[in-house]
Amino acid sequence: MTVVYFALYRKNHFKTKEFRMQEDTIEGFHCNVQAPFEKAGAEIRMTDAKVDFVFPEVPFPSNKIFATMGAQAIEAMVVHHHTLLRKSAIGELFPSDDAVFAHVTHKTAEFFIEALGGAQDFSTQYGHPALRERHFRFLIDEKARDIWLMLYKKTLKDIAFPTQHLEEFWNWIEALSIRMINRRTTFETPKRYPFASIAHEFTPKG
Amino acid sequence: MTVVYFALYRKNHFKTKEFRMQEDTIEGFHCNVQAPFEKAGAEIRMTDAKVDFVFPEVPFPSNKIFATMGAQAIEAMVVHHHTLLRKSAIGELFPSDDAVFAHVTHKTAEFFIEALGGAQDFSTQYGHPALRERHFRFLIDEKARDIWLMLYKKTLKDIAFPTQHLEEFWNWIEALSIRMINRRTTFETPKRYPFASIAHEFTPKG
Repeated sequence: MTVVYFALYRKNHFKTKEFRMQEDTIEGFHCNVQAPFEKAGAEIRMTDAKVDFVFPEVPFPSNKIFATMGAQAIEAMVVHHHTLLRKSAIGELFPSDDAVFAHVTHKTAEFFIEALGGAQDFSTQYGHPALRERHFRFLIDEKARDIWLMLYKKTLKDIAFPTQHLEEFWNWIEALSIRMINRRTTFETPKRYPFASIAHEFTPKG
Repeated sequence: MTVVYFALYRKNHFKTKEFRMQEDTIEGFHCNVQAPFEKAGAEIRMTDAKVDFVFPEVPFPSNKIFATMGAQAIEAMVVHHHTLLRKSAIGELFPSDDAVFAHVTHKTAEFFIEALGGAQDFSTQYGHPALRERHFRFLIDEKARDIWLMLYKKTLKDIAFPTQHLEEFWNWIEALSIRMINRRTTFETPKRYPFASIAHEFTPKG
């Protein structure tokens, strides 16, 4: 008997490395399609339960980012990002009407302001962000998530996001964005973009 | 520290009940959206890793069904099912061209014949079924799976599927169909339709 244990360490982010080691042993859909298809025999043949992939832990940022940037700069960042998104390959996910687009962008800004440590305008008006749930009505595949995240990287460069908070912010949106994926087009686990892999893009030229 | 263990018992279907008990403890997306959104504090706040849902074990049938039905009756069953599907709410997933539709239906029949114990024509021509992978290009949400399965139930009635093999066949397609889901529109785990819940529909009227 082979038993695969998959441990979900809750509320204990110091276990991250250990968690990831466990995660490697989980039975995903990476079946060998080159393998022969087993012929039906005299008995019922039970195949394993599987998971698609594990949505990674999300490190929600501290209130330090809001303390540095303030509401206005955060709103400007969100407007910048949304403006890029609207012109992107996933532009159709956003309202075509300018007034509705402005409203949605402001609502998103309220979420970011609150999540980064500012006023609780978002949850006061709309309740818990419940981001995955709110995004169910939009078809978001792995590629859409990549576009969203890569345009955030561009935004962070364009607006000269405070360097000392970059890693904290990036680690949040990089993991958070995976949670919006609701359309799978591949067996592959959504691509990770660790801060170490993009940090050099933010190093001041000199 | 709270540690949630999720055990995947592989190749050991006698553990099914125990497995399901473990499954209940896995951290899914059933978050309480009524809960307040935690305010950002001085420290980074790590949220849990999550899985969407666990694709259940699939009991592949024995070769008894082919022995009873033979290739011709299985092909007729698949043709019947596909004809119903084509006229259904998910009809657009199937080729509109009659010749292409007939080809796809025959290919599906070859899969069913092989999976049920008949000739290995499918895998000889196309390799491993890799059903989830082959279906990635079609958008299949929970509702599409329900339609597919409910029309199979109708098919089994319409063609008077051999009663003694009904449970074995149903348990296979009920679990297998979940694997095709690649578009999620809800937090809910895809609905299960245990044989016990549909068996009465097949009881001979008397």
